[in-house]
Amino acid sequence: MIAESIAILPIIKVNSQGSFAQTDMLAAEEPLEIRLEYGETENRQTQNVSVTMRTPGNDAELATGFLFTEGIIKNSTDVAEASHCFIACAENKENVIQVSLKPGIVPNLRNSERNFYTTSSCGVCGKGSINAIRTVSEHSSFIENNNSIDAQTLISLPQILENSQEVFADTGGLHASALFTTDGQLLIVREDVGRHNALDKLIGAALTNNQLPLNNRVLLLSGRASFELVQKAVMAGINIIAAVGAPSTLAVQLAEEFNVTLVGFLRNQRFNIYTAAHRITNTIQNTPEL
Amino acid sequence: MIAESIAILPIIKVNSQGSFAQTDMLAAEEPLEIRLEYGETENRQTQNVSVTMRTPGNDAELATGFLFTEGIIKNSTDVAEASHCFIACAENKENVIQVSLKPGIVPNLRNSERNFYTTSSCGVCGKGSINAIRTVSEHSSFIENNNSIDAQTLISLPQILENSQEVFADTGGLHASALFTTDGQLLIVREDVGRHNALDKLIGAALTNNQLPLNNRVLLLSGRASFELVQKAVMAGINIIAAVGAPSTLAVQLAEEFNVTLVGFLRNQRFNIYTAAHRITNTIQNTPEL
Repeated sequence: MIAESIAILPIIKVNSQGSFAQTDMLAAEEPLEIRLEYGETENRQTQNVSVTMRTPGNDAELATGFLFTEGIIKNSTDVAEASHCFIACAENKENVIQVSLKPGIVPNLRNSERNFYTTSSCGVCGKGSINAIRTVSEHSSFIENNNSIDAQTLISLPQILENSQEVFADTGGLHASALFTTDGQLLIVREDVGRHNALDKLIGAALTNNQLPLNNRVLLLSGRASFELVQKAVMAGINIIAAVGAPSTLAVQLAEEFNVTLVGFLRNQRFNIYTAAHRITNTIQNTPEL
Repeated sequence: MIAESIAILPIIKVNSQGSFAQTDMLAAEEPLEIRLEYGETENRQTQNVSVTMRTPGNDAELATGFLFTEGIIKNSTDVAEASHCFIACAENKENVIQVSLKPGIVPNLRNSERNFYTTSSCGVCGKGSINAIRTVSEHSSFIENNNSIDAQTLISLPQILENSQEVFADTGGLHASALFTTDGQLLIVREDVGRHNALDKLIGAALTNNQLPLNNRVLLLSGRASFELVQKAVMAGINIIAAVGAPSTLAVQLAEEFNVTLVGFLRNQRFNIYTAAHRITNTIQNTPEL
């Protein structure tokens, strides 16, 4: 996986000492076409569901995770096979993956528009999209309150993630999503040039191993927390999301609506809690700063 | 613009001194539906072209820039009007923008699939996508070699950009695209939660002001350089791209194919040159580091 996820290219490095011909490791980026095959045994049909720019590796997890977090499939048991090799193994087969559903499983392709909130009743708005998610996620009802993480454990997570990605760190070009236990044990880490792909790979891995809902875990995002990432986490039943970067307004709004704990700026021994602060324990309460 | 681009929310700030109830500035994120109206005067039709998660502000530039960089329109003169207010001004009108083309202008909707490289002849591969761009960009032929920037000027650009975005910097959540002259004068800066939106806004602004091709300018990206960003820059005739973050392999491949200078890791008084190094002047040449 590492071999195809990284490329080594000649570069010219320029600094105050001058310029130097060197080589550098870069994160690979290639398009992946996700195809869906479904229908009764005697009447199978295929459909191109999405094309995403991704870092090669864990493509089956990415495809399965994408179909799940977009609400197109409901369970890992819907899937018969996810494979690069189908029909006569076309050219560029490593950039096309086909997910075959079991006979009789009907995909919810109403949601296959890239951003499913376009189908929400109110047109294009945050509230509508939130309601749309509620209807398609079967794990969002598992988001309850008895999951929690200690503030000091939370602060330690970014360093644990960083230690685990030594090779990828060399490229400086990858987003990571990591799943932890609430006592700080790293369970799954997935990386990609696209932050949504990193999370789809992680959720696809958990889904494939029948670990959903992930309502007793903590999700760490290496970058910013967008609406899309919180939406995907909610689909998997995740109720504690911590981001090294900033959240957006709509990410906070969605987290609040689903009673998900959202932490941002988790770095340099500090963090901000945006929603559902009760799941972060042992923070010393003080008066507001002036 | 700033008012709707940023929201102030209550947060709990946790650090080694304890936890504090405060307020924090967040980058706004809202969906924007881009609609296209076209046809002869007596036979107008509308089509939903895209929904993107964006930071509100400069929506007309975003829509126009998107249509141009995706190859759907060829020129700013194709556009009669870009407005949030059409028909009866629907609910959530600020999240829907309609671009009306002049009578008789035919949009190239073959390219309206979100990632147009899906239509390339070789299926899904980098080479095919590069060829697809070549056919739709009328400015890529303007990419010649007599544009250049001094290494010390280049090094100064990130600080100039940072100084210009004081308000947005508070949110920590926005990507920026900035256009400079080759002597380091900042011309345009646009910011967004989505890096592709920031660049579409910038190119849309330049397009609206009839400044294309931008083949005597320098583009600075606040984050990483992906394939998609290089593709959009090529569409506008840009031949020097500098990113504060890392490039991906496919970004380098595309830059090389179009003879575009691609610089990465432009920070801390240093940078790497990945392609077309001849446009960076006054770098002192040294022997390779051991």
